[in-house]
Amino acid sequence: MLTRDHALALDAADPLAPWRDEFVINDQSLVYLDGSSLGMMPRRTVARLQHVMEAEWANGLIRSWGDWLGLSQRVGDRLAPLIGALPGEVVVHDSTTINLYQLVDAACALRADRRVIAIDAADFPTDRYVVDGIASARGMQVRGDFDRLDDVAVMVRSVVDYRTAAVTDVAGETARAHAAGAIALWDLSHAAGVVAIDLTAAGVQLAVGCTYKYLNGGPGSPAFSFVARDLQPTLPQPIWGWFAQADQFEMGPTFAPQHDIRRVLLGTPSILALAAAEEGITLSAEAGIDSIQSKAWAITGFALELCDELGLASSTPRDPAGRGGHVAVLHPESRRLVDQLAERNVIADFRNPDIVRVGCSPLTTRYVDVFDGLNVVQALSQPS
Amino acid sequence: MLTRDHALALDAADPLAPWRDEFVINDQSLVYLDGSSLGMMPRRTVARLQHVMEAEWANGLIRSWGDWLGLSQRVGDRLAPLIGALPGEVVVHDSTTINLYQLVDAACALRADRRVIAIDAADFPTDRYVVDGIASARGMQVRGDFDRLDDVAVMVRSVVDYRTAAVTDVAGETARAHAAGAIALWDLSHAAGVVAIDLTAAGVQLAVGCTYKYLNGGPGSPAFSFVARDLQPTLPQPIWGWFAQADQFEMGPTFAPQHDIRRVLLGTPSILALAAAEEGITLSAEAGIDSIQSKAWAITGFALELCDELGLASSTPRDPAGRGGHVAVLHPESRRLVDQLAERNVIADFRNPDIVRVGCSPLTTRYVDVFDGLNVVQALSQPS
Repeated sequence: MLTRDHALALDAADPLAPWRDEFVINDQSLVYLDGSSLGMMPRRTVARLQHVMEAEWANGLIRSWGDWLGLSQRVGDRLAPLIGALPGEVVVHDSTTINLYQLVDAACALRADRRVIAIDAADFPTDRYVVDGIASARGMQVRGDFDRLDDVAVMVRSVVDYRTAAVTDVAGETARAHAAGAIALWDLSHAAGVVAIDLTAAGVQLAVGCTYKYLNGGPGSPAFSFVARDLQPTLPQPIWGWFAQADQFEMGPTFAPQHDIRRVLLGTPSILALAAAEEGITLSAEAGIDSIQSKAWAITGFALELCDELGLASSTPRDPAGRGGHVAVLHPESRRLVDQLAERNVIADFRNPDIVRVGCSPLTTRYVDVFDGLNVVQALSQPS
Repeated sequence: MLTRDHALALDAADPLAPWRDEFVINDQSLVYLDGSSLGMMPRRTVARLQHVMEAEWANGLIRSWGDWLGLSQRVGDRLAPLIGALPGEVVVHDSTTINLYQLVDAACALRADRRVIAIDAADFPTDRYVVDGIASARGMQVRGDFDRLDDVAVMVRSVVDYRTAAVTDVAGETARAHAAGAIALWDLSHAAGVVAIDLTAAGVQLAVGCTYKYLNGGPGSPAFSFVARDLQPTLPQPIWGWFAQADQFEMGPTFAPQHDIRRVLLGTPSILALAAAEEGITLSAEAGIDSIQSKAWAITGFALELCDELGLASSTPRDPAGRGGHVAVLHPESRRLVDQLAERNVIADFRNPDIVRVGCSPLTTRYVDVFDGLNVVQALSQPS
């Protein structure tokens, strides 16, 4: 029988436990199980934004652009080791929606002889809507499964399912796509900063993802684009942005984009947003993705074991390597449960139609949070 | 003869002078003539971001999205009176590049029988590159002038020329475009917050602009999109973003966008960036666009008069109503001048090929800044 003392003992033995002190947590009684939607705020972010505001913006003014111009790349390089990318393969900019739009459209242009985009019919709405829009504009078809890929231009897939937390075999599916002549484009939004993805080893060419979940970049923090080096010099793009221009401030008559990762940049990025993203990403990079993944496996394993004991159903895979950083607790009244949990200072996510999503963010979630939270779920889940 | 005492007297009599105290200016000897590129930092922005960080992000966490979801619209409504828009016609989001891309593409879709996009061949690169990219994707032609519009799908124009500061007749040119069956799309980037534009009176349907210049929203702060009410319910868009979805969190199978201004929203916006933008925009709204424009006319007029006295050439229009908030000083060695000005604590912009751009931001620029700055320009412009 798992006890609260057992959870406390696991926290005491957790090598990542000290990282929680790096975050601003004013209410230690809050059971926050939603780092999978919005990560907590790093202490360093406050100091960093103070510096950006006072020293860089107020005092430096336009002169600070000398440093700011390279920020999307620098933050991208900090993120790179967390997803198995090389330096110069990642930029942090804009939103997942826009980055996905740009890279899916680019992939379609690279496979202009093919008329199908494949995406899981149950994938996150952002991805499906963007794909539907591109298919509409290009007169292409959208296929809701990946059974056959030999007529597919681009396969758009999430590494971690946003409901079940199931992890897809990135290397295997990328190889299968390539063998069929398709481009594989991965959405790492629910994986970055919690799953030790190795994009290089998997031979991935294109990926996007967000930084406001496990990477603690702040509400609506900028997303990222990954483009493998060999694809960078010739990648087409639908939006010809002046931050992609090779000689940006020459302001020449024709668009001549960079041959490196800057090729996917668009307009002027928010420096406040990028600086906050850098602090969150850097914390995860310092903690190390292998340690983070170990904790994710252990704490989600603990959550699943507890679900079993409490009689709570879950659709999350039992194999640690097969799941991301959250656990889907199934209940027909999950929407009511999530509302009532909030009244008891337990924050989780509702996901249609029957999921209470319990996010375990390795740098901030305690085993005792999972213990307390799931016990409240169980108490509330009884017929009243 | 204009003297420094005269400039000081103008500052003493300037009804907008007290607004300068609303900004963080640690070096009062700095002569900042570049608010036309990056506005100064409002004091309120520091307090606001502290609140967003501590109260909303750190403490409120995911629960704060209840308020954050409406922020793009709320900040848009604050901006609306500054550009003669109605409530519900403006949203603040993403970047000028992306907003322009989306609205130009939408306009092309609305005029699918026409094959020409018209844009000044000397317009700001952001605009030209974006237009070139859309024309390339759609197989359309780009025309570099506005002489004839009867075969033009969309006319893309800046209200204020980023080099000369010349103001275009928005109402007249919009009417001419409409009479020819073309859509007029205005870029207000160098106009918003300094020129009293009246989009409603001018019958404008689509516009974009940035908030980091005269609106003091911060480095890379989000841009805005304006869509006239009657066009909102049916506006097509290339990027199908989940923030445009009518029932966003139902996460349904098909994209069914809002029928109001939210229709142009895309992905999750940066809340830090939006909050900072709101503070800058609100300051201008409180000062009032008519007062701001009066000061702009007066201080740029002072600058031009001083140019004449100092023997400095300018391409900026002499009619106050014909110019925006900056003055273009012409010199064959303008690049060298701008670098040397910076060494003397005078910050201005270089613009290709021969412009020293002297930005006069009505809430922060003093007459004495213009006096001191132009005198240093004159001293440096002598053959050495």
